[in-house]
Amino acid sequence: MEIQTMQTSPSTQIVNIGGFDIGGPNFTVIAGPCSIESPAQFMETANGVKASGAHLLRGGIWKMRTSSKDFQGLGSAAFDFVKNVCKETNMSLVSEVTDIRQIEEIYDLVECFQVGSRSMQNYELLRELGKQRKPVLLKRGLSAYINEWIKAAEYITNGGNQNVILCERGIRTFETATRNTLDLNAVAYAKRNTNLPVIVDPSHAVGIRALVPDLACAAAAVGADGIIVEVHPRPAEALSDGMQALTLSDFSAMMKKLDKILTAIDRPLHKVTEHAH
Amino acid sequence: MEIQTMQTSPSTQIVNIGGFDIGGPNFTVIAGPCSIESPAQFMETANGVKASGAHLLRGGIWKMRTSSKDFQGLGSAAFDFVKNVCKETNMSLVSEVTDIRQIEEIYDLVECFQVGSRSMQNYELLRELGKQRKPVLLKRGLSAYINEWIKAAEYITNGGNQNVILCERGIRTFETATRNTLDLNAVAYAKRNTNLPVIVDPSHAVGIRALVPDLACAAAAVGADGIIVEVHPRPAEALSDGMQALTLSDFSAMMKKLDKILTAIDRPLHKVTEHAH
Amino acid sequence: MEIQTMQTSPSTQIVNIGGFDIGGPNFTVIAGPCSIESPAQFMETANGVKASGAHLLRGGIWKMRTSSKDFQGLGSAAFDFVKNVCKETNMSLVSEVTDIRQIEEIYDLVECFQVGSRSMQNYELLRELGKQRKPVLLKRGLSAYINEWIKAAEYITNGGNQNVILCERGIRTFETATRNTLDLNAVAYAKRNTNLPVIVDPSHAVGIRALVPDLACAAAAVGADGIIVEVHPRPAEALSDGMQALTLSDFSAMMKKLDKILTAIDRPLHKVTEHAH
Amino acid sequence: MEIQTMQTSPSTQIVNIGGFDIGGPNFTVIAGPCSIESPAQFMETANGVKASGAHLLRGGIWKMRTSSKDFQGLGSAAFDFVKNVCKETNMSLVSEVTDIRQIEEIYDLVECFQVGSRSMQNYELLRELGKQRKPVLLKRGLSAYINEWIKAAEYITNGGNQNVILCERGIRTFETATRNTLDLNAVAYAKRNTNLPVIVDPSHAVGIRALVPDLACAAAAVGADGIIVEVHPRPAEALSDGMQALTLSDFSAMMKKLDKILTAIDRPLHKVTEHAH
Repeated sequence: MEIQTMQTSPSTQIVNIGGFDIGGPNFTVIAGPCSIESPAQFMETANGVKASGAHLLRGGIWKMRTSSKDFQGLGSAAFDFVKNVCKETNMSLVSEVTDIRQIEEIYDLVECFQVGSRSMQNYELLRELGKQRKPVLLKRGLSAYINEWIKAAEYITNGGNQNVILCERGIRTFETATRNTLDLNAVAYAKRNTNLPVIVDPSHAVGIRALVPDLACAAAAVGADGIIVEVHPRPAEALSDGMQALTLSDFSAMMKKLDKILTAIDRPLHKVTEHAH
Repeated sequence: MEIQTMQTSPSTQIVNIGGFDIGGPNFTVIAGPCSIESPAQFMETANGVKASGAHLLRGGIWKMRTSSKDFQGLGSAAFDFVKNVCKETNMSLVSEVTDIRQIEEIYDLVECFQVGSRSMQNYELLRELGKQRKPVLLKRGLSAYINEWIKAAEYITNGGNQNVILCERGIRTFETATRNTLDLNAVAYAKRNTNLPVIVDPSHAVGIRALVPDLACAAAAVGADGIIVEVHPRPAEALSDGMQALTLSDFSAMMKKLDKILTAIDRPLHKVTEHAH
Repeated sequence: MEIQTMQTSPSTQIVNIGGFDIGGPNFTVIAGPCSIESPAQFMETANGVKASGAHLLRGGIWKMRTSSKDFQGLGSAAFDFVKNVCKETNMSLVSEVTDIRQIEEIYDLVECFQVGSRSMQNYELLRELGKQRKPVLLKRGLSAYINEWIKAAEYITNGGNQNVILCERGIRTFETATRNTLDLNAVAYAKRNTNLPVIVDPSHAVGIRALVPDLACAAAAVGADGIIVEVHPRPAEALSDGMQALTLSDFSAMMKKLDKILTAIDRPLHKVTEHAH
Repeated sequence: MEIQTMQTSPSTQIVNIGGFDIGGPNFTVIAGPCSIESPAQFMETANGVKASGAHLLRGGIWKMRTSSKDFQGLGSAAFDFVKNVCKETNMSLVSEVTDIRQIEEIYDLVECFQVGSRSMQNYELLRELGKQRKPVLLKRGLSAYINEWIKAAEYITNGGNQNVILCERGIRTFETATRNTLDLNAVAYAKRNTNLPVIVDPSHAVGIRALVPDLACAAAAVGADGIIVEVHPRPAEALSDGMQALTLSDFSAMMKKLDKILTAIDRPLHKVTEHAH
């Protein structure tokens, strides 16, 4: 075991997505469904999370699924209505690419490319994202050392794209009562040892709806720069990960509690009116 | 993987240690050195943490050490001065027993017996503690499923002693940058699935002094009932675990931040004047 | 990660149990039920495993169980008939102690004390076993580093009892398809870095009857000094761990395959006639 | 924990690489350097391993490295001399592709595409390999459940390419004394639950040269269909993974011991003269 003492933190560089600074004095909330399933589902979710104060939209167009038989996302069938939802709600989208060819396909649709945990060491994908001009949200691999996660980010930044946001989303451990194990040690550690913004995905990290808000609050208190969270109007009908999706009402209640904690530690939520799309 | 949704939490039963209710509306802070090393070191630490608002003292009389060559604690040589420090500071002590024979030896010295993570499945020890009238703080084993931890508590409660407090102190995972991995999922889960108070030991959970306060804040935000934290007047001179001990000044700063967060979520720190030894 | 290259192995010291040298030129097989359940069950198992070439008996008198409601072993009610079975079959017993007080209780019954994985860091128990004159079989803790396992053995040897046998029994990992993960890396590593005999418990390591013989063969091939394996005449009726118990017929078939592999690598099974009780 | 009992194994389908059947009555050895570094290094290694009985060559043209600053493989600069070495030695090559674009580039160079552990869930790559007519060696992800590994194989077979070989190469666990933890439980389990051939990479699984042969022998005894092992004429000069590379002399000694074990269990090594390139 290698243990280090750290006394000072580097200053965090700021990454701007759709008008919101991530890594600055305000806390950012990215919310939306796991999968984008239909125009109605996506519009309802977007309007709902915006009304409760979310800053950016999330939503999967292509889904990586353990089984090839599970729902793999709508793909290009979603492009038109996704663009429309973003325009109507005046929100920017963060969405995952799982292959180099997808970068170009959704370039105009998203303001931030997400790299999922299964792809954290898809170095060819990272190199290609290093050549782009839009930010990249890099999820930690399921069993990646913090150090491997930081080094994976360098595959992007070495290519010239400095706009990388680290995202802790739970690691795989022996525990089975929860989907993964949220590693807030890693958030505190990465904040002290890199200058990249660090956000948390409490939804994948615990996998149990009722516990997501508590862990979002913990993420805020530990010093994360934001969260990315799954919300679905009717989780029981979700085509993927319904167990961990908040309802719109859960989300609204969570935002109120987050607001209290963040205000207390002088790290307030962005005001939605700051938005300059 | 077994995933459960939980909508309601059981009401937490209250365990009183030295006049402080654990599991009720207030948050409890237990602080002190890893090992009790000398009368001067223990008195200085006790006075220091009390001045910053700690409610209860911690301190090891016997230490479990991986190597038989490492410092094993002062043992009975500490009894007299420990009693004196508790009396002078009007604070109660939480201390570890590693063997059945130690229960009687320190019965009059402590107000709560601690069971360390290596002993979580020392069922003979748990059974014996189930016959005592003083509370037991049960640390989670290094690689114990949440369910095993809860079932270990039943070895105590089945014996008639209901005064058990669960303590999450980090689990062993693949990550090596931090000493252990703090599992706040487990805290949120245990709060929803048991009626026992749950506290967090951020010191062992991360093992790096600079990160301990951030994780203590996360523990407060996630809904823990308290923390137990290591403090040493001069960590560089500590005979055990100096890397993770807060200085008295670190501790004081942490208490101020904790106070802000806990006030914001209506879970204030106990007032020290509540103390009724 | 700390990686070491090792070129030479220390010579293994020999530990004798009931006339069989463990750690010498021959391979040792310890077999029997998880729990000793009745005179008939234990006698039938003992006769059966002996007929197929087992050298020593295993069998739990006290069982450590995660749940306090599960079968905890017969305890002292088994003493008389256990002694009788050992005498009738002319076999020596390896059995677990979970508490210091049990050492004296079964001193005359066993030729080797077993320390279970939950007790690997019960240092008071190890210290007490260090004062005894009978060998100790020390199972690796569920999540013990190889180095912690070796250092735990020193708690015994430092007390004067050099007769320690290390036993790898599977570690806890993320994998859930098998009960634990058999770590044969650790066996190869320990053989090169200590002079203690090292044996393998394939039953707990995999937890699935059909796979136990394959893993026993792997243990023989990797260089272990023996195995300890669970056998039950009617596994479906076992009071503990029936899923992983071999039938007498499975055991017999496994012994034949082991014999072939061990003969090929010049590490033959002890002949049963070597036995000098 | 989900535990299953299995009594029968499916018959293993046979995958032919360069004239050698994998999954049939004979055991296959794939050997060569981690990285192909130069014509001389690759030729010397190929000749050396062939002389000791290796059946197929391994060697990395593109290397996935945690740090973007480490040696990334020769890439296209190696194509000509690699073809020449294969021709001169009359051996077929197994080599890794890390990106869809590489499949076409090395299609004529290799007889089997390797998918590394970091790419096990690069589903786009797997889908593309499912359209090819050459076999795929699919390494298990660092922290993939056995079930995820099997499901990843279906991304290939669903595309029409049934020629998939599973390769266990060590999983990431808490243990740090060895590079990874070889999971032979998984080999035994996969042999019983799929009809795909299963081989073992002991080099990455343990990461320590001196222990590789012992673990190769364990793989043979547990029932694997072959091994893939790293060999370097001068490991100290290797550009990647030198700590785990066998010398040619180590390899030769290992083959002799493997031969004994495999003969004993009626699973002999392929004769090299069987080769029909």
